[in-house]
Amino acid sequence: MIAPQIDALMKMFARLPGVGPRSARRMVLNLIEHKQDRLDPLIDLMTHVSGEIVTCAVCGNLDVTSPCSICQNTARDQSKLCIVTQVSDLWALERTNAFRGRYLVLGGVLSAIDGVRPEDLRLAELRQLLASGGVTEVILALGATVDGQTTAHYLSEIIQKSGVEVSFLAHGIPVGGELDYLDDGTLITALRARRKTD
Amino acid sequence: MIAPQIDALMKMFARLPGVGPRSARRMVLNLIEHKQDRLDPLIDLMTHVSGEIVTCAVCGNLDVTSPCSICQNTARDQSKLCIVTQVSDLWALERTNAFRGRYLVLGGVLSAIDGVRPEDLRLAELRQLLASGGVTEVILALGATVDGQTTAHYLSEIIQKSGVEVSFLAHGIPVGGELDYLDDGTLITALRARRKTD
Repeated sequence: MIAPQIDALMKMFARLPGVGPRSARRMVLNLIEHKQDRLDPLIDLMTHVSGEIVTCAVCGNLDVTSPCSICQNTARDQSKLCIVTQVSDLWALERTNAFRGRYLVLGGVLSAIDGVRPEDLRLAELRQLLASGGVTEVILALGATVDGQTTAHYLSEIIQKSGVEVSFLAHGIPVGGELDYLDDGTLITALRARRKTD
Repeated sequence: MIAPQIDALMKMFARLPGVGPRSARRMVLNLIEHKQDRLDPLIDLMTHVSGEIVTCAVCGNLDVTSPCSICQNTARDQSKLCIVTQVSDLWALERTNAFRGRYLVLGGVLSAIDGVRPEDLRLAELRQLLASGGVTEVILALGATVDGQTTAHYLSEIIQKSGVEVSFLAHGIPVGGELDYLDDGTLITALRARRKTD
Protein backbone atom coordinates (compact mmCIF):
# COMPACT_ATOMS: atom_id res chain seq x y z
CA MET A 1 0.00 0.00 0.00
CA ILE A 2 1.66 3.18 -1.21
CA ALA A 3 0.09 6.40 0.09
CA PRO A 4 -2.08 7.86 -2.72
CA GLN A 5 -0.23 11.21 -2.59
CA ILE A 6 3.11 9.48 -3.24
CA ASP A 7 1.55 7.38 -5.99
CA ALA A 8 0.10 10.48 -7.68
CA LEU A 9 3.47 12.25 -7.41
CA MET A 10 5.28 9.30 -9.02
CA LYS A 11 2.75 9.23 -11.87
CA MET A 12 3.26 12.95 -12.44
CA PHE A 13 7.05 12.60 -12.53
CA ALA A 14 6.70 9.65 -14.91
CA ARG A 15 4.98 11.96 -17.43
CA LEU A 16 8.10 14.13 -17.78
CA PRO A 17 10.20 13.53 -20.91
CA GLY A 18 12.75 10.74 -20.55
CA VAL A 19 11.36 9.57 -17.19
CA GLY A 20 9.80 6.12 -16.82
CA PRO A 21 7.85 4.68 -13.87
CA ARG A 22 10.98 3.17 -12.35
CA SER A 23 13.08 6.34 -12.41
CA ALA A 24 10.07 8.39 -11.26
CA ARG A 25 9.87 6.10 -8.22
CA ARG A 26 13.56 6.59 -7.43
CA MET A 27 13.30 10.35 -7.82
CA VAL A 28 10.20 10.70 -5.64
CA LEU A 29 11.64 8.43 -2.93
CA ASN A 30 14.88 10.41 -2.94
CA LEU A 31 12.95 13.68 -2.61
CA ILE A 32 10.84 12.41 0.31
CA GLU A 33 13.84 10.93 2.08
CA HIS A 34 15.66 14.27 1.74
CA LYS A 35 12.68 16.45 2.56
CA GLN A 36 14.57 19.36 4.13
CA ASP A 37 17.45 19.70 1.72
CA ARG A 38 15.79 18.53 -1.54
CA LEU A 39 11.99 18.39 -1.56
CA ASP A 40 11.24 21.67 0.20
CA PRO A 41 13.91 23.77 -1.64
CA LEU A 42 12.67 22.29 -4.94
CA ILE A 43 9.08 23.32 -4.13
CA ASP A 44 10.29 26.86 -3.34
CA LEU A 45 12.29 27.14 -6.54
CA MET A 46 9.50 25.74 -8.71
CA THR A 47 7.07 28.21 -7.15
CA HIS A 48 9.48 31.06 -8.03
CA VAL A 49 9.89 29.82 -11.59
CA SER A 50 6.14 29.37 -12.01
CA GLY A 51 5.48 32.89 -10.80
CA GLU A 52 8.33 34.74 -12.47
CA ILE A 53 9.23 33.12 -15.78
CA VAL A 54 7.38 34.46 -18.82
CA THR A 55 7.61 33.87 -22.55
CA CYS A 56 9.20 36.82 -24.39
CA ALA A 57 6.57 38.41 -26.64
CA VAL A 58 9.23 39.39 -29.19
CA CYS A 59 11.26 36.20 -29.63
CA GLY A 60 9.59 33.42 -27.59
CA ASN A 61 12.52 32.92 -25.19
CA LEU A 62 11.83 32.17 -21.52
CA ASP A 63 13.00 34.82 -19.06
CA VAL A 64 11.92 36.90 -16.07
CA THR A 65 11.07 39.84 -18.34
CA SER A 66 9.31 40.33 -21.68
CA PRO A 67 11.05 41.46 -23.87
CA CYS A 68 13.73 39.07 -22.60
CA SER A 69 17.29 40.07 -21.64
CA ILE A 70 18.59 39.07 -25.10
CA CYS A 71 15.98 41.19 -26.93
CA GLN A 72 16.69 44.12 -24.57
CA ASN A 73 20.46 43.87 -24.97
CA THR A 74 21.38 46.60 -27.47
CA ALA A 75 25.03 45.48 -27.42
CA ARG A 76 23.98 42.42 -29.44
CA ASP A 77 24.13 42.53 -33.23
CA GLN A 78 20.61 43.65 -34.27
CA SER A 79 21.29 42.84 -37.93
CA LYS A 80 21.54 39.08 -37.42
CA LEU A 81 18.49 36.99 -36.51
CA CYS A 82 18.82 33.28 -35.73
CA ILE A 83 15.65 31.18 -36.01
CA VAL A 84 15.54 28.07 -33.79
CA THR A 85 12.82 25.47 -33.21
CA GLN A 86 12.61 25.55 -29.42
CA VAL A 87 14.02 27.31 -26.35
CA SER A 88 16.51 24.51 -25.63
CA ASP A 89 18.09 25.13 -29.07
CA LEU A 90 18.50 28.82 -28.15
CA TRP A 91 20.17 27.73 -24.89
CA ALA A 92 22.47 25.36 -26.80
CA LEU A 93 23.61 28.18 -29.11
CA GLU A 94 24.01 30.61 -26.20
CA ARG A 95 26.26 28.10 -24.39
CA THR A 96 28.67 28.22 -27.36
CA ASN A 97 29.04 32.04 -27.10
CA ALA A 98 29.52 31.91 -30.88
CA PHE A 99 26.47 33.95 -31.85
CA ARG A 100 25.90 37.51 -30.63
CA GLY A 101 22.81 38.44 -32.65
CA ARG A 102 19.13 37.99 -31.79
CA TYR A 103 16.89 34.95 -31.81
CA LEU A 104 13.40 33.88 -32.76
CA VAL A 105 12.02 30.71 -31.18
CA LEU A 106 9.69 29.27 -33.83
CA GLY A 107 7.83 27.04 -31.38
CA GLY A 108 8.04 23.91 -33.55
CA VAL A 109 8.46 22.83 -37.17
CA LEU A 110 5.78 22.27 -39.82
CA SER A 111 4.62 18.67 -39.65
CA ALA A 112 1.80 16.92 -41.46
CA ILE A 113 1.95 13.97 -39.07
CA ASP A 114 1.91 16.02 -35.84
CA GLY A 115 -0.55 18.51 -37.36
CA VAL A 116 1.71 21.56 -36.98
CA ARG A 117 0.54 24.28 -39.42
CA PRO A 118 2.11 27.66 -40.24
CA GLU A 119 -0.34 29.42 -37.88
CA ASP A 120 1.04 27.34 -34.96
CA LEU A 121 4.50 28.90 -35.40
CA ARG A 122 5.76 32.40 -34.49
CA LEU A 123 5.41 33.74 -38.04
CA ALA A 124 3.66 36.98 -37.01
CA GLU A 125 6.62 37.73 -34.72
CA LEU A 126 9.01 36.91 -37.59
CA ARG A 127 7.20 39.30 -39.98
CA GLN A 128 7.28 42.01 -37.32
CA LEU A 129 11.04 41.58 -36.79
CA LEU A 130 11.62 41.70 -40.57
CA ALA A 131 9.33 44.74 -40.99
CA SER A 132 11.03 46.66 -38.18
CA GLY A 133 14.12 46.87 -40.41
CA GLY A 134 17.66 46.43 -39.25
CA VAL A 135 17.79 42.67 -39.87
CA THR A 136 20.09 41.93 -42.82
CA GLU A 137 20.67 38.20 -42.34
CA VAL A 138 18.46 35.42 -41.02
CA ILE A 139 20.25 32.22 -39.96
CA LEU A 140 17.97 29.18 -40.09
CA ALA A 141 19.21 26.87 -37.31
CA LEU A 142 16.50 24.21 -37.59
CA GLY A 143 17.08 20.49 -37.18
CA ALA A 144 18.36 18.43 -40.11
CA THR A 145 15.14 16.39 -40.22
CA VAL A 146 12.66 16.25 -43.12
CA ASP A 147 10.20 18.47 -41.22
CA GLY A 148 13.00 20.85 -40.19
CA GLN A 149 14.20 21.23 -43.77
CA THR A 150 10.64 21.68 -45.10
CA THR A 151 10.11 24.45 -42.56
CA ALA A 152 13.46 26.04 -43.46
CA HIS A 153 12.43 26.09 -47.14
CA TYR A 154 9.04 27.61 -46.25
CA LEU A 155 10.67 30.28 -44.08
CA SER A 156 13.40 31.16 -46.57
CA GLU A 157 10.71 32.10 -49.13
CA ILE A 158 9.03 34.47 -46.67
CA ILE A 159 12.36 36.01 -45.62
CA GLN A 160 13.74 36.45 -49.14
CA LYS A 161 10.54 38.30 -50.12
CA SER A 162 11.54 40.92 -47.53
CA GLY A 163 14.90 41.28 -49.28
CA VAL A 164 16.79 39.78 -46.34
CA GLU A 165 19.63 37.31 -46.81
CA VAL A 166 19.04 33.72 -45.61
CA SER A 167 21.74 31.31 -44.42
CA PHE A 168 21.75 27.81 -42.97
CA LEU A 169 23.91 25.96 -40.46
CA ALA A 170 26.56 23.89 -42.27
CA HIS A 171 26.11 20.14 -42.53
CA GLY A 172 29.09 17.84 -42.19
CA ILE A 173 31.11 15.64 -39.89
CA PRO A 174 30.61 16.54 -36.20
CA VAL A 175 33.81 17.75 -34.54
CA GLY A 176 35.48 14.72 -32.94
CA GLY A 177 33.35 12.36 -35.05
CA GLU A 178 34.72 9.08 -36.37
CA LEU A 179 34.00 8.49 -40.05
CA ASP A 180 32.93 4.86 -39.76
CA TYR A 181 30.25 5.64 -37.18
CA LEU A 182 28.59 8.29 -39.37
CA ASP A 183 25.48 7.64 -41.46
CA ASP A 184 25.74 7.73 -45.26
CA GLY A 185 23.69 10.92 -45.60
CA THR A 186 26.11 12.93 -43.44
CA LEU A 187 29.14 11.49 -45.25
CA ILE A 188 27.70 12.31 -48.69
CA THR A 189 26.81 15.85 -47.57
CA ALA A 190 30.28 16.36 -46.06
CA LEU A 191 31.95 15.08 -49.24
CA ARG A 192 29.86 17.32 -51.52
CA ALA A 193 30.48 20.37 -49.34
CA ARG A 194 34.25 19.69 -49.13
CA ARG A 195 36.49 22.73 -48.91
CA LYS A 196 39.80 23.47 -50.61
CA THR A 197 42.74 24.21 -48.32
CA ASP A 198 43.09 27.97 -47.82
CA MET B 1 21.69 33.81 -21.10
CA ILE B 2 19.44 31.45 -19.18
CA ALA B 3 17.45 33.09 -16.36
CA PRO B 4 19.18 32.23 -13.04
CA GLN B 5 15.96 30.74 -11.58
CA ILE B 6 15.70 28.27 -14.49
CA ASP B 7 19.40 27.45 -14.20
CA ALA B 8 19.07 26.78 -10.44
CA LEU B 9 16.01 24.59 -11.07
CA MET B 10 17.88 22.55 -13.69
CA LYS B 11 20.81 22.06 -11.31
CA MET B 12 18.44 20.86 -8.58
CA PHE B 13 16.76 18.38 -10.91
CA ALA B 14 20.19 17.14 -12.04
CA ARG B 15 20.95 16.11 -8.44
CA LEU B 16 18.10 13.58 -8.41
CA PRO B 17 19.14 9.93 -8.86
CA GLY B 18 19.46 8.86 -12.50
CA VAL B 19 19.09 12.41 -13.85
CA GLY B 20 21.94 14.11 -15.71
CA PRO B 21 22.26 17.76 -16.80
CA ARG B 22 20.76 17.03 -20.22
CA SER B 23 17.65 15.24 -18.97
CA ALA B 24 17.24 17.84 -16.20
CA ARG B 25 17.15 20.51 -18.91
CA ARG B 26 14.48 18.63 -20.88
CA MET B 27 12.38 18.07 -17.77
CA VAL B 28 12.55 21.70 -16.60
CA LEU B 29 11.78 23.05 -20.07
CA ASN B 30 8.83 20.69 -20.38
CA LEU B 31 7.51 21.82 -16.99
CA ILE B 32 7.81 25.53 -17.84
CA GLU B 33 6.22 25.06 -21.25
CA HIS B 34 3.30 23.23 -19.62
CA LYS B 35 2.96 25.55 -16.65
CA GLN B 36 -0.77 25.18 -16.06
CA ASP B 37 -1.16 21.45 -16.53
CA ARG B 38 2.25 20.23 -15.30
CA LEU B 39 4.35 22.71 -13.30
CA ASP B 40 1.61 24.14 -11.07
CA PRO B 41 -0.11 20.80 -10.30
CA LEU B 42 3.31 19.30 -9.52
CA ILE B 43 4.07 22.12 -7.06
CA ASP B 44 0.69 21.52 -5.36
CA LEU B 45 1.24 17.79 -5.09
CA MET B 46 4.81 18.14 -3.81
CA THR B 47 3.59 20.61 -1.18
CA HIS B 48 0.97 18.06 -0.06
CA VAL B 49 3.53 15.26 0.07
CA SER B 50 6.02 17.43 1.96
CA GLY B 51 3.39 18.37 4.53
CA GLU B 52 1.61 15.06 4.95
CA ILE B 53 4.01 12.17 4.44
CA VAL B 54 5.77 10.93 7.58
CA THR B 55 8.06 8.01 8.38
CA CYS B 56 6.30 5.28 10.37
CA ALA B 57 7.86 5.09 13.86
CA VAL B 58 7.22 1.34 14.01
CA CYS B 59 8.50 0.05 10.67
CA GLY B 60 10.11 2.98 8.77
CA ASN B 61 7.58 2.95 5.90
CA LEU B 62 6.43 6.29 4.37
CA ASP B 63 2.74 7.06 4.81
CA VAL B 64 0.30 9.79 5.87
CA THR B 65 0.04 8.29 9.36
CA SER B 66 2.46 6.85 11.92
CA PRO B 67 2.02 3.94 12.60
CA CYS B 68 1.49 3.43 8.87
CA SER B 69 -1.53 1.74 7.28
CA ILE B 70 0.34 -1.60 7.07
CA CYS B 71 1.29 -1.53 10.79
CA GLN B 72 -2.29 -0.55 11.71
CA ASN B 73 -3.88 -3.27 9.56
CA THR B 74 -4.77 -6.06 12.00
CA ALA B 75 -5.95 -8.25 9.12
CA ARG B 76 -2.31 -8.76 8.14
CA ASP B 77 -0.38 -11.72 9.53
CA GLN B 78 1.28 -10.36 12.68
CA SER B 79 3.46 -13.47 13.06
CA LYS B 80 5.53 -12.81 9.91
CA LEU B 81 7.99 -9.93 9.74
CA CYS B 82 9.83 -9.10 6.51
CA ILE B 83 13.01 -7.00 6.81
CA VAL B 84 13.89 -4.91 3.74
CA THR B 85 16.70 -2.43 3.10
CA GLN B 86 14.68 0.56 1.90
CA VAL B 87 11.13 1.78 1.30
CA SER B 88 11.28 1.02 -2.43
CA ASP B 89 11.92 -2.66 -1.59
CA LEU B 90 8.79 -2.65 0.59
CA TRP B 91 6.86 -1.16 -2.34
CA ALA B 92 8.25 -3.82 -4.69
CA LEU B 93 7.08 -6.62 -2.38
CA GLU B 94 3.68 -4.96 -1.86
CA ARG B 95 3.16 -4.80 -5.63
CA THR B 96 3.45 -8.59 -5.82
CA ASN B 97 0.62 -9.08 -3.27
CA ALA B 98 2.51 -12.23 -2.27
CA PHE B 99 3.29 -11.21 1.32
CA ARG B 100 0.57 -10.32 3.84
CA GLY B 101 2.68 -9.96 6.99
CA ARG B 102 4.41 -6.90 8.42
CA TYR B 103 7.60 -5.09 7.40
CA LEU B 104 10.62 -3.44 8.90
CA VAL B 105 12.56 -0.98 6.74
CA LEU B 106 16.15 -1.31 7.92
CA GLY B 107 17.27 2.00 6.39
CA GLY B 108 20.40 0.58 4.73
CA VAL B 109 22.85 -2.29 5.02
CA LEU B 110 26.05 -2.49 7.07
CA SER B 111 28.93 -1.19 4.97
CA ALA B 112 32.53 -0.54 5.90
CA ILE B 113 33.07 1.50 2.72
CA ASP B 114 29.99 3.73 3.11
CA GLY B 115 30.48 3.87 6.90
CA VAL B 116 27.09 2.38 7.78
CA ARG B 117 27.25 0.96 11.34
CA PRO B 118 24.65 -1.05 13.30
CA GLU B 119 23.49 2.10 15.11
CA ASP B 120 22.54 3.66 11.73
CA LEU B 121 19.95 0.91 11.12
CA ARG B 122 16.50 0.38 12.70
CA LEU B 123 17.75 -2.24 15.17
CA ALA B 124 15.98 -0.70 18.20
CA GLU B 125 12.69 -0.99 16.28
CA LEU B 126 13.55 -4.60 15.39
CA ARG B 127 14.24 -5.50 19.02
CA GLN B 128 10.96 -3.87 20.02
CA LEU B 129 9.01 -5.85 17.42
CA LEU B 130 10.68 -9.08 18.57
CA ALA B 131 10.11 -8.27 22.28
CA SER B 132 6.44 -7.46 21.72
CA GLY B 133 5.93 -11.16 20.98
CA GLY B 134 3.70 -12.56 18.25
CA VAL B 135 6.45 -12.66 15.59
CA THR B 136 7.35 -16.29 14.84
CA GLU B 137 9.24 -15.86 11.55
CA VAL B 138 11.49 -13.11 10.23
CA ILE B 139 12.09 -13.10 6.46
CA LEU B 140 15.34 -11.37 5.53
CA ALA B 141 14.70 -9.80 2.10
CA LEU B 142 18.01 -7.95 1.72
CA GLY B 143 19.92 -7.58 -1.52
CA ALA B 144 22.21 -10.38 -2.73
CA THR B 145 25.30 -8.15 -2.39
CA VAL B 146 28.24 -8.72 -0.05
CA ASP B 147 27.01 -5.96 2.28
CA GLY B 148 23.45 -7.26 2.13
CA GLN B 149 24.54 -10.78 3.04
CA THR B 150 26.82 -9.53 5.84
CA THR B 151 23.88 -7.61 7.28
CA ALA B 152 21.60 -10.64 6.92
CA HIS B 153 24.11 -12.74 8.87
CA TYR B 154 24.38 -10.06 11.58
CA LEU B 155 20.58 -9.79 11.86
CA SER B 156 19.96 -13.53 11.91
CA GLU B 157 22.15 -13.83 15.03
CA ILE B 158 20.12 -11.17 16.84
CA ILE B 159 16.82 -12.70 15.74
CA GLN B 160 17.73 -16.30 16.59
CA LYS B 161 18.71 -15.20 20.11
CA SER B 162 15.05 -14.19 20.55
CA GLY B 163 14.03 -17.73 19.59
CA VAL B 164 12.41 -16.54 16.35
CA GLU B 165 12.82 -18.47 13.09
CA VAL B 166 14.82 -16.75 10.32
CA SER B 167 14.35 -17.32 6.57
CA PHE B 168 15.87 -15.83 3.42
CA LEU B 169 14.59 -15.11 -0.07
CA ALA B 170 15.56 -17.93 -2.45
CA HIS B 171 18.41 -17.39 -4.89
CA GLY B 172 18.20 -18.78 -8.41
CA ILE B 173 17.35 -18.07 -12.02
CA PRO B 174 15.00 -15.07 -12.39
CA VAL B 175 11.63 -16.01 -13.91
CA GLY B 176 11.91 -15.52 -17.68
CA GLY B 177 15.71 -15.41 -17.47
CA GLU B 178 17.89 -16.91 -20.20
CA LEU B 179 20.65 -19.17 -18.93
CA ASP B 180 23.44 -17.82 -21.12
CA TYR B 181 22.92 -14.24 -19.94
CA LEU B 182 23.24 -15.15 -16.25
CA ASP B 183 26.40 -14.67 -14.24
CA ASP B 184 28.29 -17.71 -12.94
CA GLY B 185 27.42 -17.03 -9.29
CA THR B 186 23.68 -17.20 -9.94
CA LEU B 187 24.04 -20.36 -12.07
CA ILE B 188 26.14 -22.14 -9.40
CA THR B 189 23.63 -21.15 -6.68
CA ALA B 190 20.69 -22.28 -8.80
CA LEU B 191 22.40 -25.62 -9.53
CA ARG B 192 23.25 -26.28 -5.90
CA ALA B 193 19.73 -25.36 -4.76
CA ARG B 194 18.12 -27.56 -7.45
CA ARG B 195 14.82 -29.18 -6.53
CA LYS B 196 13.53 -32.68 -7.28
CA THR B 197 10.26 -32.93 -9.20
CA ASP B 198 7.34 -33.23 -6.79
